[in-house]
Amino acid sequence: MNRSVLKTAGHSFRSKNMSKRVQNITVSAIKEMMLLASDIEEPFLLAQGIPAEDTPDHVKKAIIEAVNGPHASKYSILSGLKECRQAVATRYKRKYDVNFDVNTEIGITAGAMEACMISCLATINPGDEVILIAPCFSSHIEQVLTSGGIPVFVDTDEKNGWCLDMNKIKKAITKKTKAIIVTNPSNPSGAVYSESEIRELAKIALKHDLFIIADETYDFLTYNKIPFFSFCQIPELKKNLILIGSSSKEYSMTGYRIGWMICENDILNQLFKLHDATTVCACVASQFGFIAAVNGPQDSVIELVKNMEERRDLICKRLDKVPHLFKYYKKPQGAYYILPEIAFPHKDSIQAAFEIQKATSVVTVPGVAFSPMGEHHIRMSFGGGAVRGPKGKDLINQAFDKLEEWGKKYI
Amino acid sequence: MNRSVLKTAGHSFRSKNMSKRVQNITVSAIKEMMLLASDIEEPFLLAQGIPAEDTPDHVKKAIIEAVNGPHASKYSILSGLKECRQAVATRYKRKYDVNFDVNTEIGITAGAMEACMISCLATINPGDEVILIAPCFSSHIEQVLTSGGIPVFVDTDEKNGWCLDMNKIKKAITKKTKAIIVTNPSNPSGAVYSESEIRELAKIALKHDLFIIADETYDFLTYNKIPFFSFCQIPELKKNLILIGSSSKEYSMTGYRIGWMICENDILNQLFKLHDATTVCACVASQFGFIAAVNGPQDSVIELVKNMEERRDLICKRLDKVPHLFKYYKKPQGAYYILPEIAFPHKDSIQAAFEIQKATSVVTVPGVAFSPMGEHHIRMSFGGGAVRGPKGKDLINQAFDKLEEWGKKYI
Repeated sequence: MNRSVLKTAGHSFRSKNMSKRVQNITVSAIKEMMLLASDIEEPFLLAQGIPAEDTPDHVKKAIIEAVNGPHASKYSILSGLKECRQAVATRYKRKYDVNFDVNTEIGITAGAMEACMISCLATINPGDEVILIAPCFSSHIEQVLTSGGIPVFVDTDEKNGWCLDMNKIKKAITKKTKAIIVTNPSNPSGAVYSESEIRELAKIALKHDLFIIADETYDFLTYNKIPFFSFCQIPELKKNLILIGSSSKEYSMTGYRIGWMICENDILNQLFKLHDATTVCACVASQFGFIAAVNGPQDSVIELVKNMEERRDLICKRLDKVPHLFKYYKKPQGAYYILPEIAFPHKDSIQAAFEIQKATSVVTVPGVAFSPMGEHHIRMSFGGGAVRGPKGKDLINQAFDKLEEWGKKYI
Repeated sequence: MNRSVLKTAGHSFRSKNMSKRVQNITVSAIKEMMLLASDIEEPFLLAQGIPAEDTPDHVKKAIIEAVNGPHASKYSILSGLKECRQAVATRYKRKYDVNFDVNTEIGITAGAMEACMISCLATINPGDEVILIAPCFSSHIEQVLTSGGIPVFVDTDEKNGWCLDMNKIKKAITKKTKAIIVTNPSNPSGAVYSESEIRELAKIALKHDLFIIADETYDFLTYNKIPFFSFCQIPELKKNLILIGSSSKEYSMTGYRIGWMICENDILNQLFKLHDATTVCACVASQFGFIAAVNGPQDSVIELVKNMEERRDLICKRLDKVPHLFKYYKKPQGAYYILPEIAFPHKDSIQAAFEIQKATSVVTVPGVAFSPMGEHHIRMSFGGGAVRGPKGKDLINQAFDKLEEWGKKYI
């Protein structure tokens, strides 16, 4: 199944002398749509997940102090500044009352993305199967393929808010299964898996001695006060867990590239080998920003979650008015994405996203990027952030004004 | 041959369920020595290559402006800010009078390291052979191994300043050879390959249709006005060239993590797939810093090269006084490393580096990290930068005072 927007758009990719792995993968359609959007003069960017809120002032101040100080110009230690690892530990202690050893269990990376890539490279041998909860985050597919693994997509129940089907997961496990990658809350579906679902997944992983690679980038972002349960709250899973997080969304720091990985020391020492050969260390000034973010006031996070919930309600309200274009079953419970089904006549989700973009300058992401189950869907972010064009509620309203106008022909 | 310092030091690495590739590689001994050094209260850091000079003020100012501006908090486009790609193009136009297309031939990465890693992943299939000019940069070995490639070390002529032996290179080429990785000026040897050597390498690559992956991070840094000739000055090589560079050393920006890759568009489109799934984009505030660095005054670079030459002369003068400890044949011609042979009784270079570190708090890098040819050598950086302890000439002088004192027992 072709999931490359750029290929469809006619970009050229050399095959001669290039590795098989790179020919098997694609740029995430999220970024592909952003690349194509760079030609649009006034775009409405619902594609990439960026918070509308700015980086908190005290975080900016700390970054500026670091730039003026003696450390930012120089590499940090491979594992990240000790104060930065301490900030990660503090975050998890505060949020989950779970303790991690600053010296042996935490590594700072150039965003959660690097942590996911090296976790895959460190655990997956060619031919190993990796279970992905579908629809899944697009880059996880590429990371599994880059490692030579075989993505095994286990579909969720769309009509019930994309919830898990444990029987399907159990049935998907074979002797070749190496890991389950879980993004919770889910990007792109907005599902939040419950404590009992997470515990059940952990049980399955332990029974079959699989790794859980848990991308919990959106753990702070659930709506209607739905509780979030982290894999790190299950002590017996620790030996099989690689827990990944990011400062990007919680502190509106997507451009600063700070993420982390948390696991037992003998796994972390393996991950560091790949981290070292990939980025050496995360941007040091950004590390100082994250230290300030965790240790400073958290009002900005509370405000951000509140705003996100309002934007979620707004995008759902606007979607409700165009059932001839898009159909969804339940409001997202977490993260800032919604993945409605395409209701207007179309060939596939790439062509549908192209048609929307061409006709309205509204930039979305074709669902096929998120597994075959995502086909015939479109992902929209209500994060409200955009590198260009309107932002926040204005962005959602103006994008849907355009969509409504254009969609009249399908009524 | 064990090239892992941490393994020797007793750190634990899980093998169960981890991928073969990660078990085949190691953290670069450079960073391993830095990790072990974090326990030393007053270290003399000759291990990691960091310039003593600070990031130029106009670069810092631009980063701060970016932090206060609207863009730094958000992802840049995957390929990097257009102005940042333009800065790379400007740099090469100014330095080599070579034109690159800003829109199709340049990608910004999280340091040269990311560019090297993804260049390997994008070109090397399991079992492919890759020629490394030995002694070679340690991380290039890990990047080849991560990609499933077989490093083929072609030794250079130590007594003649580590110059190339073209016959050895030609003989090393087999049907399986996929690429030649060339670091020029060389890290760790300090050799600078001449125009005729570079042209000869290009000829060999074209004859056998191999990629040249050229890490020219130190292209601005040669001594005694030795001219530097870049692979990009050979137009007919372009279709087989991936050219990699970095802002880290030229503008003292190691902590900011900005590098780049330049190649034909159909290769670049492949590299972007891996870049996207690895780091998304380079730190955006850092990108603004690099734009200012290239477009601003270049006095700092002239000053840095002058200081480096003085530090090179100083470290050679100090080495000349301890022939019972270290032996070298020629002064480094470029970069800021010297790789003397170990002259005191020792088992291997890891044990030698450990002994030095324990006895003197002087942190160096065991030569075995840089290929088997590097064994029985020690790499020292005269960059003069250090995250802790003395810096610049003080660092070199104090480190060698310690070494001299300790080394009396070997006279």
